[in-house]
Amino acid sequence: MEHVFRLTLACPDRVGIVARVSNFLAQYNGTITEANQHADLQEGWFFLRNEIRADSLPFNIETFRQAFAPIADDLQMTWDVHDSQTRRKVVLLASKDNHCLADLLNRWHGGDLDCDIPCVIANHDHLRGLVEWHGIPFHHVPVDPANKAVHFDRVAELVEAAGADTLVLARYMQILPASFCARWPQRIINIHHSFLPSFIGARPYHQAFERGVKLIGATCHYVTDDLDAGPIIDQDVTRVSHRDDVSEMIRRGKDVERAVLARGLRWHLEDRVLVHGNKTVVFE
Amino acid sequence: MEHVFRLTLACPDRVGIVARVSNFLAQYNGTITEANQHADLQEGWFFLRNEIRADSLPFNIETFRQAFAPIADDLQMTWDVHDSQTRRKVVLLASKDNHCLADLLNRWHGGDLDCDIPCVIANHDHLRGLVEWHGIPFHHVPVDPANKAVHFDRVAELVEAAGADTLVLARYMQILPASFCARWPQRIINIHHSFLPSFIGARPYHQAFERGVKLIGATCHYVTDDLDAGPIIDQDVTRVSHRDDVSEMIRRGKDVERAVLARGLRWHLEDRVLVHGNKTVVFE
Amino acid sequence: MEHVFRLTLACPDRVGIVARVSNFLAQYNGTITEANQHADLQEGWFFLRNEIRADSLPFNIETFRQAFAPIADDLQMTWDVHDSQTRRKVVLLASKDNHCLADLLNRWHGGDLDCDIPCVIANHDHLRGLVEWHGIPFHHVPVDPANKAVHFDRVAELVEAAGADTLVLARYMQILPASFCARWPQRIINIHHSFLPSFIGARPYHQAFERGVKLIGATCHYVTDDLDAGPIIDQDVTRVSHRDDVSEMIRRGKDVERAVLARGLRWHLEDRVLVHGNKTVVFE
Amino acid sequence: MEHVFRLTLACPDRVGIVARVSNFLAQYNGTITEANQHADLQEGWFFLRNEIRADSLPFNIETFRQAFAPIADDLQMTWDVHDSQTRRKVVLLASKDNHCLADLLNRWHGGDLDCDIPCVIANHDHLRGLVEWHGIPFHHVPVDPANKAVHFDRVAELVEAAGADTLVLARYMQILPASFCARWPQRIINIHHSFLPSFIGARPYHQAFERGVKLIGATCHYVTDDLDAGPIIDQDVTRVSHRDDVSEMIRRGKDVERAVLARGLRWHLEDRVLVHGNKTVVFE
Repeated sequence: MEHVFRLTLACPDRVGIVARVSNFLAQYNGTITEANQHADLQEGWFFLRNEIRADSLPFNIETFRQAFAPIADDLQMTWDVHDSQTRRKVVLLASKDNHCLADLLNRWHGGDLDCDIPCVIANHDHLRGLVEWHGIPFHHVPVDPANKAVHFDRVAELVEAAGADTLVLARYMQILPASFCARWPQRIINIHHSFLPSFIGARPYHQAFERGVKLIGATCHYVTDDLDAGPIIDQDVTRVSHRDDVSEMIRRGKDVERAVLARGLRWHLEDRVLVHGNKTVVFE
Repeated sequence: MEHVFRLTLACPDRVGIVARVSNFLAQYNGTITEANQHADLQEGWFFLRNEIRADSLPFNIETFRQAFAPIADDLQMTWDVHDSQTRRKVVLLASKDNHCLADLLNRWHGGDLDCDIPCVIANHDHLRGLVEWHGIPFHHVPVDPANKAVHFDRVAELVEAAGADTLVLARYMQILPASFCARWPQRIINIHHSFLPSFIGARPYHQAFERGVKLIGATCHYVTDDLDAGPIIDQDVTRVSHRDDVSEMIRRGKDVERAVLARGLRWHLEDRVLVHGNKTVVFE
Repeated sequence: MEHVFRLTLACPDRVGIVARVSNFLAQYNGTITEANQHADLQEGWFFLRNEIRADSLPFNIETFRQAFAPIADDLQMTWDVHDSQTRRKVVLLASKDNHCLADLLNRWHGGDLDCDIPCVIANHDHLRGLVEWHGIPFHHVPVDPANKAVHFDRVAELVEAAGADTLVLARYMQILPASFCARWPQRIINIHHSFLPSFIGARPYHQAFERGVKLIGATCHYVTDDLDAGPIIDQDVTRVSHRDDVSEMIRRGKDVERAVLARGLRWHLEDRVLVHGNKTVVFE
Repeated sequence: MEHVFRLTLACPDRVGIVARVSNFLAQYNGTITEANQHADLQEGWFFLRNEIRADSLPFNIETFRQAFAPIADDLQMTWDVHDSQTRRKVVLLASKDNHCLADLLNRWHGGDLDCDIPCVIANHDHLRGLVEWHGIPFHHVPVDPANKAVHFDRVAELVEAAGADTLVLARYMQILPASFCARWPQRIINIHHSFLPSFIGARPYHQAFERGVKLIGATCHYVTDDLDAGPIIDQDVTRVSHRDDVSEMIRRGKDVERAVLARGLRWHLEDRVLVHGNKTVVFE
């Protein structure tokens, strides 16, 4: 993978933003390898993502940050620049189900997910062997239904200790307390096993079966304290029929969950997802 | 299109149903050209659809009906047999939007919808020219918001006069009164412009835009007096992104609506859709 | 539809292209409503498409052209700028099959295809009524198998007389002579009824049936003198099974053909398709 | 998973086949849980698959076989009946690439592939750890380019020793000699990384990139001695664009390969694939 800086920004739309940004890059001889922009005409907001070849620039990421800051301030940008060689630290949270976790580990192992995985945390011990085979520490943190706070405190502690940048709920099946969500805004990624906003809440495949839908889906979204209502990163569906009972829907759904979560995480890691209000701009 | 009889039946599941039916057909030398069955193990219900080459049987549809009745009674079947040469009469109801109506007319004109269309009824006069060009009578029946009953009474009258077997709401945009629905149970087909049960009710594309979904869809279903909650015949989706505003979603959605409605109607006309409770078995 | 200028360009990649273009636009206070870029790192080639709100600029398209020319020359651009209010003239060529033609006419009639259709030309007279109902002149130009040149000369004459910018082969089923192709490079759009490069040549659905494929497709491409080998604009597929004979494949394939051709043409009309070598960059 | 017998048969089409089969089952009180039939009218051939609840029948699979044989002989059937509790033995062949292998192992581990995997054989040693973590023996059988026969003899020996019923080429990347193919007809499953018959032979993603296609695909097929030309079990595609270079196509293609191979193998294991000539009937 090429060494690039990834600049992402959002700001009120006005004339000349691209000119300011591209002049800045051109003045330092920066080679843009990928560029995306979006003007939300209704909201009057502008979004941009540029990949710049790191070795084409005369400075490192810190100097880049300092040099760019005045432009960003001037145009009231929410912005960031990320060095592709600084791999993100992603903590995976799981329960007993292995399909999403195993898929992510397999992709990571094969080099298709550009991140470090400092540890996996689960409320059951089932998946320890799988995780440890990949050389990743596994923490079993049980949930006491009478006192869930203990669990979440311990998880938060482990996440902090790992220096994690991103959390992925790989079918973790626990509802996060609001205070937990607030600590990692737009950095906790969940896979919900329905095509949201259909079948919010528990047992979505059972709900889908009862309604007799002809497609089932999955949704990858950022977690907010409003359950299943956070900004959607990606969704997909697969066809089902009268022949498929709930267990078959669950089996088929797994493939969609795996694919959608992997895609959403990948886009997140590559700084392709910009959140605005409760919606996302995805520069895939 | 080959001349066939289409036998469809549903009954409590038990051993020997297929044997009884296939013995019946074999005894008269009937050639089965397509056969589908489904046992719903949870409900304990059995569904079957057979196409039998008409000229392989020694009798016409009426004699078939009489000959088969004792078996059907014995096994407590809900059943029907349909002669493919008896074309169904389908009345199309529309409003101002032409995309679904024009698509159905075009397919019908090209020989891809095996039915007669005795007339099109609309609450606006916009589509008269298109309809009449196809040689189909067009009835403009306006809606008086203060007294909608007049409209529905007149529509029902026209449908009866046309001897219609099936009604298709091709973006008709009116909510049918319960009494109207009850007159043609499982014979009124609607296209809803969302992936139900998401975005029930008015302006689904606006709702989808607000929620920031990444797929939009359409649902073809039989109309019941519970709005947007009838048995689903078919659904499909298409991908959207942050670049698509509501008008673009509407434009893209049209393609899905057209495709899903045409598919659902075709399956209905070929006796491929069996309703059980609020769900469908579709022998596509 | 908003009044915009659409600037498209391709040139050797180097540092500062975007800066030059965006400075140019910013200096005249141009509001960019949509922007896409692509750097083909392997070919060392750069592609850009910008939509600029016309009323934000102090000049018309001609002045734009003159003002931008020095930059374009300097950077060795192949480029164009198109005024969205100058509707393209598109001549449709057909044969007997009505599905693609009727679909395009219906979309055009509904306002979803932003172009004029000065005439339809066909080698049979079947579709005259459909075309004329839309208020479009229809020319029947028969093909004499012994002397096809007469046909193509007459077609070319009519196309010229219509001042056509683009030709669409809506299942026209005639192989164009090289000299004809050369007259409208990258401006003749064909729909091929297979997923190219599978099943090149005649009767692709029959070939697909023989091979036992599980998906059939369609391909929209620019016509070159190398049959079925021109730059691909779009493709799509649909699922088939052992139940589908050739006639059913043809029926299902029509839906894909319609969708792919309409999409490809729309992108072409919106200047979203840039050709480089035998491949396309599609800024959809 | 329920204990069933799976009866599959193919024979010349004639009146009364279903009656014969269903009478046979009904006479022993057999409960049919799933039934599929297909009459290929062009070929005059009939195909059937029935699942019968094992505990509804008064006999085991051997007695079933004997009891049914006279009917099968009489109707000139190619047929089989399989006890779902007799798990098939599937040997996986791999090379260095882990994505298909890891996916199959993960599905197997999670209970979604109903088979035994007596061993994995590979021509490189890379994947030993992954395989052995699943508790499956791993055999490294190198290929000597100067004398490939040694390799294939050894592989055949291991397959025989494992008592394998089915072989899966999970990106094995070796061309099997005809004699090897002939030993396991319709029992060697390959995943080809293109949408066949496009891009037959080596490096299909490179070929796809060169041609500029907008979809890439994968094909799961039975191996015959005619390379890439065996009966197709399943295919699927995914969308690509001008932004995707060969390495990105390879990455995206992996998801399609995984899904298509897993689906094809599952259908094979559940006796859903019947081969006739060079085509398949898939009762999915």
